[in-house]
Amino acid sequence: MSMKLRAAIIGATGYGGVELIRLLLTHPHVEITSVISSSNAGAPLADGYPHLNQIVLDKLDAIDVELIKQKSDVVFLAAPHGVASGLAPQLIDVGLKVIDVSGDFRLQSGETYERWYKHKPADPAYLAKAIYGLAEVFGEEVKGSTFISNPGCYPTATLLGLVPIVKQGWADTSSIIVDAKSGVSGAGRGLGLTAHFSEMNENFLAYKVNKHQHTPEIEQVLGRVAGEEVVITFTTHLVPMTRGILSTIYVNLKQKHTEDEIIDLYRQYYEGRRFVRIREKGKWPATKEVWGSNYCDIGLSLDERTGRLTIISVIDNIVKGAGGQAVQNLNLMMGWDEATGLAFTPVYP
Amino acid sequence: MSMKLRAAIIGATGYGGVELIRLLLTHPHVEITSVISSSNAGAPLADGYPHLNQIVLDKLDAIDVELIKQKSDVVFLAAPHGVASGLAPQLIDVGLKVIDVSGDFRLQSGETYERWYKHKPADPAYLAKAIYGLAEVFGEEVKGSTFISNPGCYPTATLLGLVPIVKQGWADTSSIIVDAKSGVSGAGRGLGLTAHFSEMNENFLAYKVNKHQHTPEIEQVLGRVAGEEVVITFTTHLVPMTRGILSTIYVNLKQKHTEDEIIDLYRQYYEGRRFVRIREKGKWPATKEVWGSNYCDIGLSLDERTGRLTIISVIDNIVKGAGGQAVQNLNLMMGWDEATGLAFTPVYP
Amino acid sequence: MSMKLRAAIIGATGYGGVELIRLLLTHPHVEITSVISSSNAGAPLADGYPHLNQIVLDKLDAIDVELIKQKSDVVFLAAPHGVASGLAPQLIDVGLKVIDVSGDFRLQSGETYERWYKHKPADPAYLAKAIYGLAEVFGEEVKGSTFISNPGCYPTATLLGLVPIVKQGWADTSSIIVDAKSGVSGAGRGLGLTAHFSEMNENFLAYKVNKHQHTPEIEQVLGRVAGEEVVITFTTHLVPMTRGILSTIYVNLKQKHTEDEIIDLYRQYYEGRRFVRIREKGKWPATKEVWGSNYCDIGLSLDERTGRLTIISVIDNIVKGAGGQAVQNLNLMMGWDEATGLAFTPVYP
Amino acid sequence: MSMKLRAAIIGATGYGGVELIRLLLTHPHVEITSVISSSNAGAPLADGYPHLNQIVLDKLDAIDVELIKQKSDVVFLAAPHGVASGLAPQLIDVGLKVIDVSGDFRLQSGETYERWYKHKPADPAYLAKAIYGLAEVFGEEVKGSTFISNPGCYPTATLLGLVPIVKQGWADTSSIIVDAKSGVSGAGRGLGLTAHFSEMNENFLAYKVNKHQHTPEIEQVLGRVAGEEVVITFTTHLVPMTRGILSTIYVNLKQKHTEDEIIDLYRQYYEGRRFVRIREKGKWPATKEVWGSNYCDIGLSLDERTGRLTIISVIDNIVKGAGGQAVQNLNLMMGWDEATGLAFTPVYP
Repeated sequence: MSMKLRAAIIGATGYGGVELIRLLLTHPHVEITSVISSSNAGAPLADGYPHLNQIVLDKLDAIDVELIKQKSDVVFLAAPHGVASGLAPQLIDVGLKVIDVSGDFRLQSGETYERWYKHKPADPAYLAKAIYGLAEVFGEEVKGSTFISNPGCYPTATLLGLVPIVKQGWADTSSIIVDAKSGVSGAGRGLGLTAHFSEMNENFLAYKVNKHQHTPEIEQVLGRVAGEEVVITFTTHLVPMTRGILSTIYVNLKQKHTEDEIIDLYRQYYEGRRFVRIREKGKWPATKEVWGSNYCDIGLSLDERTGRLTIISVIDNIVKGAGGQAVQNLNLMMGWDEATGLAFTPVYP
Repeated sequence: MSMKLRAAIIGATGYGGVELIRLLLTHPHVEITSVISSSNAGAPLADGYPHLNQIVLDKLDAIDVELIKQKSDVVFLAAPHGVASGLAPQLIDVGLKVIDVSGDFRLQSGETYERWYKHKPADPAYLAKAIYGLAEVFGEEVKGSTFISNPGCYPTATLLGLVPIVKQGWADTSSIIVDAKSGVSGAGRGLGLTAHFSEMNENFLAYKVNKHQHTPEIEQVLGRVAGEEVVITFTTHLVPMTRGILSTIYVNLKQKHTEDEIIDLYRQYYEGRRFVRIREKGKWPATKEVWGSNYCDIGLSLDERTGRLTIISVIDNIVKGAGGQAVQNLNLMMGWDEATGLAFTPVYP
Repeated sequence: MSMKLRAAIIGATGYGGVELIRLLLTHPHVEITSVISSSNAGAPLADGYPHLNQIVLDKLDAIDVELIKQKSDVVFLAAPHGVASGLAPQLIDVGLKVIDVSGDFRLQSGETYERWYKHKPADPAYLAKAIYGLAEVFGEEVKGSTFISNPGCYPTATLLGLVPIVKQGWADTSSIIVDAKSGVSGAGRGLGLTAHFSEMNENFLAYKVNKHQHTPEIEQVLGRVAGEEVVITFTTHLVPMTRGILSTIYVNLKQKHTEDEIIDLYRQYYEGRRFVRIREKGKWPATKEVWGSNYCDIGLSLDERTGRLTIISVIDNIVKGAGGQAVQNLNLMMGWDEATGLAFTPVYP
Repeated sequence: MSMKLRAAIIGATGYGGVELIRLLLTHPHVEITSVISSSNAGAPLADGYPHLNQIVLDKLDAIDVELIKQKSDVVFLAAPHGVASGLAPQLIDVGLKVIDVSGDFRLQSGETYERWYKHKPADPAYLAKAIYGLAEVFGEEVKGSTFISNPGCYPTATLLGLVPIVKQGWADTSSIIVDAKSGVSGAGRGLGLTAHFSEMNENFLAYKVNKHQHTPEIEQVLGRVAGEEVVITFTTHLVPMTRGILSTIYVNLKQKHTEDEIIDLYRQYYEGRRFVRIREKGKWPATKEVWGSNYCDIGLSLDERTGRLTIISVIDNIVKGAGGQAVQNLNLMMGWDEATGLAFTPVYP
């Protein structure tokens, strides 16, 4: 390949944006041509992120669709929700490929979006165009598409853990309970008491109980996979660490199966997909084992006493749960190997 | 009170033992007369715990029932499980009051103990004498008794969260799922890779999935309260912090109730018990809010969509989950106010 | 004592204020009669600090000198610097005892204050009345006084480590270098990127290098003790933990002394003062060993190769470095034992 | 390049070994052909490090010089000190390139080694052959050499901060004080109470005060650069984080210089060396800003009041302080660009 794909990143000063930059800097087929922020335009990006000193020399561009069109082929939208719904249509209309990392195009129903996000939904015409980029599940749809809605962090960990058993029809879908835990970076760089070091260090807490906006996203995908409406219980917690999500998922099985059968099912479902690793019987993954990488590791435990299946699924929320999966989707869109630029090892310890 | 109760602590070099010492040092009616360790006898306790320099001058005593009898009125057994089963009967037989903080006398069935603990169970004659000291639930039995089996840390947080709704008969007891998270101090001072700083820092993981020995303890108490056999799903996780347990508990309700009714039920159940605090509607407790204290804080959320109740219960695992509740039980045994020596504020932040 | 001393706390919603409340709640001779905040007046204090639920029922009072006069005998000023300079004179003028925990009355020279704090200094007439409450050094002056300027957190750890050797005349005072490290709670509850969890977790950094406002405070006291002007090098760092300060202090000795002589010197200097603990030869304290307590632990190491003395001094920055020493000063002012209400054990682990 | 250099790693089960594996896996010119451990031979490496599942399939080889010779061209020795001194000569004798990450070949004087390491020193004939691989200082010697002694973690951060000012002759070398702080991973995977999570979390402490074995290594290099014997004061501390070293270094200047002159001096010294980044005036680096990368970031502050220079130098102890610099040295040995395989961005946050 002689020419590189030119990428612009909107929302470059958030954690998602900065991680996309880190990943794209070592991508062999991509060149970052514009880092964009609605605030701080004109200032060097490295001013706010000294770790980028002498690595990223670019100054932040303002949001200017014409300029973006001139400078880039693909746009990563790493802005907060409520922003992408307005921007993405403009970018699409001028012929840019768009990968939206926000929640604005994930829910097909505008009404559902409004109920959970408390924002005006995106234009239905564009909602209809968005491909939901859960790479290991809908990768075939991602190939050749030009507008991707990148999954949320919790949905990624949770759905990769649930899809095989639900798709196979073995799960009692009315019984699904998801107990999810996230590092604090999921809350972004915006200041707040919950993310204040002295309050969150040596602390563990639940938040948005029965109210988290990722609930309908998980339900929508499960419903699609199951072929029936699915309603789940979903609880989110904050862990005193920066990166990592662990979802503990509880499902009643419709019929008796052995743990071995279930592990086999998962191995077959993910065969050939290098970023999902199924742990062997009796082993469960830890968030640190995927830290800084695009892996999703899954462990399975069937309780003989209750017939209930416990699924443990872990990701790095900023990689597989955001920027990494966005790059993986770009790879699929472009017909490249899905691991291009992502084939690195978790950082341990 | 002119004379203080003399207390001996066996297992004084473990975290549970050291916390008991901290608590008893400010108890107005108790005097520590012997700190005991099977290893290290003869060495000053402060050698291994420099925070006790110039506070505890005592040297460690060896385990010698006759000596204990001479020096003390009550013995706290903070030894690992498998030790108390042998020692407690001897201490009881010489007329000492005993509070066992290990798991050895919690399960009435020796067979169940052996299956989950992989140890030989205690003598049934002594098992029958042990009062299970979940202070807010069985406090009346604790009063006047002389041999207490102190509840486990996970069972304390979990049962205080579950007993009111189960006792009231509103819970579908076949649906109970407990997703519990603990700080690392629960694993004690014994070295191991899971408690190695570089492995556990910035990490979150599940362990002993469907195998944790606190499962039958929770089931036994729920069964007793419900008047029927109860089998639960129980998952334990490690949080990168030192102290704190948060149990997220899921229960299907038999019939429709409002969140307000449920919160009222909990408030009434715990009326007059100062160490349980029920959060108001829409608020959930964080582990840091009980740090270093004997409180158990509980939040409740009813999901209208599923009819499922989510209960969040937090404690400091070494205080309410071990030494603090042991002192509370001593207070009840002796007829003192249950908060004697425990009426301090959580340390925040 | 039949009647308790009535205490008001201004700045009750900051970490210093909340810690004072925790400490005073178990003080046998003090009753908190007013918790005061310039913002949030009228709201229950526990709204912003749920760990105080059912412990502190008080609503926040506004700042009203007349009301404070009616309700209290002593006022703790835990407001940010720049506030106390205006308030303290008013409180003193109506006859209240005042303990100021801010930096406003620590520097005798208004000019120096202005240079380092970038604020207008306090009225010199009141500056002259303030007794600098470094309890183990100037305790005799504190006794019977009515207006205390409580030392800063870094100065407390540093000065307790330096005063004995400087006072004895053994230190080359032109050689003093203080390398200090603090937990993040020292930055208070005010939000900022440096105290944002995801930025500060797994991070260590220096800040305000050669510019920290505690520099002249340390120099002023050393100058007074040495009887000559002292200029030091002082560097402050943030540690990814909530509580604790460790000062590593380097001093050239004027003449040769042995490590034993130096340790003896420190032991003699602090004889009878229970809150300073000198470690034995070859041992150095850790911040966790004083966590949650009023202790200052000191270790000493003389390098035979260079003749340089290294002093390690640790405190809990919110206790001995703020609220705890303030209570200790109150005890001295009132003629009570200095440990009254403070005689508790560090929380470990 | 059609054929890759074949690399063996001895000590593959330690943190240094595992990090070398992570780095070499993405090195374009290197292939790992043997992972070696004195214990655990025959077991898959990923058994002990689940983050390597499906990435490193190799089983651990035993230490067998003949086999190593057959399978590899270069050997990284990541074994504890005391092991390399015996192995390196054998590996060199069979014609292998050797990069020793331990301390065994860093000190030219066997006597000094024995005094600080309490081990028998290596054979002087081989000591004489070892090139000290501080890449930015002695890179010219590294080029073309076949046996590298890789610098220690503390010496790397400290020396990169000191060499320019010492080499220039501006530093009073009798005044050098190094106050160094390290994450806990520096202590390795070996279990111990200091690295026990519950003891080290929320803790900060000094250790080996005036006794750390990296002292003579720093002094040796400074002496060589200064052309005179240098004796320093060196204190090491543990920070409750996994990765990162920050050295705060104090030096008296022989003559007056401005901060600008000094910053210029550093910029010139490191011109063209991409892994050292000098911060602009008034800015100091944080360890997180180099996390997971091979950078060493340096900030400088001259105190006008004392004429003393404060140097802040940060690295990731396992990358620039161990495996990363080892790979950088390999690059230099082989005549490749020094950044080959290392040109990645720090992971932030």
